[in-house]
Amino acid sequence: MAEENTAPTVGVALLGMGTVGREVLRILGEAEQDFTARIGGRLEVRGVAVSDLTKPRDGVDAALLTDDALSLVKRDDIDLVIEVIGGIDYPRTVVLAALKAGKSVVTANKALVAAHADELSEAADSSGADLFFEAAVAAAIPVVGPLRRSLAGDKVNQVMGIVNGTTNFILDAMDKRGASYDEMLAEATELGYAEADPSADVDGYDAASKAAILASLAFHSPVTSDDVHCEGIRDITAEDISAAKAAGCTVKLLAICERLVDESGAESISARVYPTLVPLSHPLASVSESFNAIFVVAEYAGRLMFYGNGAGGAPTASAVLGDVVAAARNVVHGGRAPGMSTYANLPIADFGEVRTRYHVDMTVQDRPGVLAEVASTFAANTVSIKTVRQEEHSEGARLVVITHHAAERALESTVDALKKLDAVKNVRSVIRMEGN
Amino acid sequence: MAEENTAPTVGVALLGMGTVGREVLRILGEAEQDFTARIGGRLEVRGVAVSDLTKPRDGVDAALLTDDALSLVKRDDIDLVIEVIGGIDYPRTVVLAALKAGKSVVTANKALVAAHADELSEAADSSGADLFFEAAVAAAIPVVGPLRRSLAGDKVNQVMGIVNGTTNFILDAMDKRGASYDEMLAEATELGYAEADPSADVDGYDAASKAAILASLAFHSPVTSDDVHCEGIRDITAEDISAAKAAGCTVKLLAICERLVDESGAESISARVYPTLVPLSHPLASVSESFNAIFVVAEYAGRLMFYGNGAGGAPTASAVLGDVVAAARNVVHGGRAPGMSTYANLPIADFGEVRTRYHVDMTVQDRPGVLAEVASTFAANTVSIKTVRQEEHSEGARLVVITHHAAERALESTVDALKKLDAVKNVRSVIRMEGN
Repeated sequence: MAEENTAPTVGVALLGMGTVGREVLRILGEAEQDFTARIGGRLEVRGVAVSDLTKPRDGVDAALLTDDALSLVKRDDIDLVIEVIGGIDYPRTVVLAALKAGKSVVTANKALVAAHADELSEAADSSGADLFFEAAVAAAIPVVGPLRRSLAGDKVNQVMGIVNGTTNFILDAMDKRGASYDEMLAEATELGYAEADPSADVDGYDAASKAAILASLAFHSPVTSDDVHCEGIRDITAEDISAAKAAGCTVKLLAICERLVDESGAESISARVYPTLVPLSHPLASVSESFNAIFVVAEYAGRLMFYGNGAGGAPTASAVLGDVVAAARNVVHGGRAPGMSTYANLPIADFGEVRTRYHVDMTVQDRPGVLAEVASTFAANTVSIKTVRQEEHSEGARLVVITHHAAERALESTVDALKKLDAVKNVRSVIRMEGN
Repeated sequence: MAEENTAPTVGVALLGMGTVGREVLRILGEAEQDFTARIGGRLEVRGVAVSDLTKPRDGVDAALLTDDALSLVKRDDIDLVIEVIGGIDYPRTVVLAALKAGKSVVTANKALVAAHADELSEAADSSGADLFFEAAVAAAIPVVGPLRRSLAGDKVNQVMGIVNGTTNFILDAMDKRGASYDEMLAEATELGYAEADPSADVDGYDAASKAAILASLAFHSPVTSDDVHCEGIRDITAEDISAAKAAGCTVKLLAICERLVDESGAESISARVYPTLVPLSHPLASVSESFNAIFVVAEYAGRLMFYGNGAGGAPTASAVLGDVVAAARNVVHGGRAPGMSTYANLPIADFGEVRTRYHVDMTVQDRPGVLAEVASTFAANTVSIKTVRQEEHSEGARLVVITHHAAERALESTVDALKKLDAVKNVRSVIRMEGN
């Protein structure tokens, strides 16, 4: 106790009292002595910013509450700011003000970091404050730290992850139960996995923010969410899932960050989010329910995977508090973590030049010559076919083509040409395949 | 280029030119500009210590070679020491001298860290140098960093890992091919996975060193390899593996670090290495070949897993170089990473009090009443039976009992009593079960 009282104190401002904010406060209270020992100083929460002061807040001294986050973070007795508000514009203003005032910031806000990493890290660099955001990607799964720190002596070539628990829950349930997207979305909403407006999850925007952050860290280059090609899972049908099974695959919404190298050796970055067929033998295929996993391929380390809870109050708070310990240690002992490293400054590749494989599912006329017409359409667009499966279908024949690697642009022109063929009644779905 | 020439320089001493040392040099050469950009300073290898100066060393300036590591690390132009020699006593002397002289040390030497972490970190603390050892556990898989840093705001309750690639290769091959231990050890030796003297691997000592390091980090307490209960895989037979299969399991050599809590709430640490039955549904069961994986259960983060290459020149060099970047950044910019944190100082639990489940495989007389005798022997020793399987066997009947959780001490006395029964011809094997 004596030690605790003489230890230096770090003044903390907590912004936001949602699920994560409440967990942060609870854990800070429960494990106070551990934090003091690990930091070499005592954390003291000196202000809690909320949007609505009239709402009852259990377990928080009412004197700490304020609805003026901006004034709070500038106070002299605040050394460290924890931002768990969400949104972009308001937290941006507050976090920038805090960093400019030399206060270290720990944020769980992926949208903010994905949109404004450059500006925020510039503010942190100029004042010497720390900016940490482990919780912004896959909550408690350490991936920001490993990319920033552990792999700092390696060359990362690919990061491929299941980084959205809601969509993984939906796709996994569709796969295991043969249910439709709408049924499983309804269940996810009922269970609290999906928001009332599920767009950020099911349209891939949440994953796209994380892809931007991962690509930026992996390739030491500035990447924002605007640089990420993003497609969601709304159009995935039970029929797509069973077609995936027939191909020995499952469907996952992946965030994919790749280092591309052209013939001249010039490097660029592809960051993209879309539903993909993943072979069952791939480690990502067995990531079930709302779990997250990030698969990394590095030049020297080889294949790595990080797996765990990618969301939820306690796991997110765990990641936030790991950063809080690091930031508080620096407040007490001096020193600063490396800032965002964007020296490589690689350009974003044109999405049309990204190469992957495709699972193309068509309904075609059931007559001789159709397969030849379809095959020559692929060939004319320089897309090479790997496997073909044809079966009877109520509306004609069903033809499923899996291609070799081809450029997005070539695939797009192939599909345009297929749609113009009389032989092709419709192109039911085109889903990419990754992970082999 | 101009930037490179004006950047501050960090003088590096490399100790050891084995597989890892050569990879470290190669990568430092290949990615020089990346290291400079990530560090904000240039790494310059100013000396390479080897034991035999007469051996040809490709790709190293002969003027850098020395067989006097101790003098090298004390030189004024050395800021950072990379130790990849192996062994304990000699590197201990050299690393201590380096740390006392204020030189930061990056080591891949698990045996050294597991035996002398206390002494080494004390030396580092008193001179303000950094001591890093990510490569000492599971090579390129970031696990030291996540435990030290990412989970610093959490409470780790269990770390369970496959941390030895050689034994995992042998056990996995025995499982997949139904081969014997001796056959697969011979193959592992031929493939270069196992040393000519395989004892460090197959007797579990290598895993025990890693268990000590993991337990120490996870529980913020001093744990050395002497504190680890260690059993190897030499006695695992093809029959054990098929019995495991019959129980829906596979056999893995696990390093297990657990926080134990007694009825009074007092905490202690169990660190142990032994072959165990792991249910096929557990993520560790599917870790094949020579891959490593570490499974962590934390109070708030929940279940996490880290997977990848746990050995080999390039993966180990990747981990070493991640640490080199961090240490060199601190040399250039000031600051220091947190030292070993042992404030919790939890005692090591008596192995007899550790509780787990057991798979007991016996040959018994094939006559009425035997099962009752066996069952009452378990009951008399307060070991509760979960399942029993009896089948015909050439030498009598085979009886396989799987228990509920029981203390090691109770199990031991049960087995002693079983051996004294006339009804029990022999207790073929007792293998623990973990991971449910």
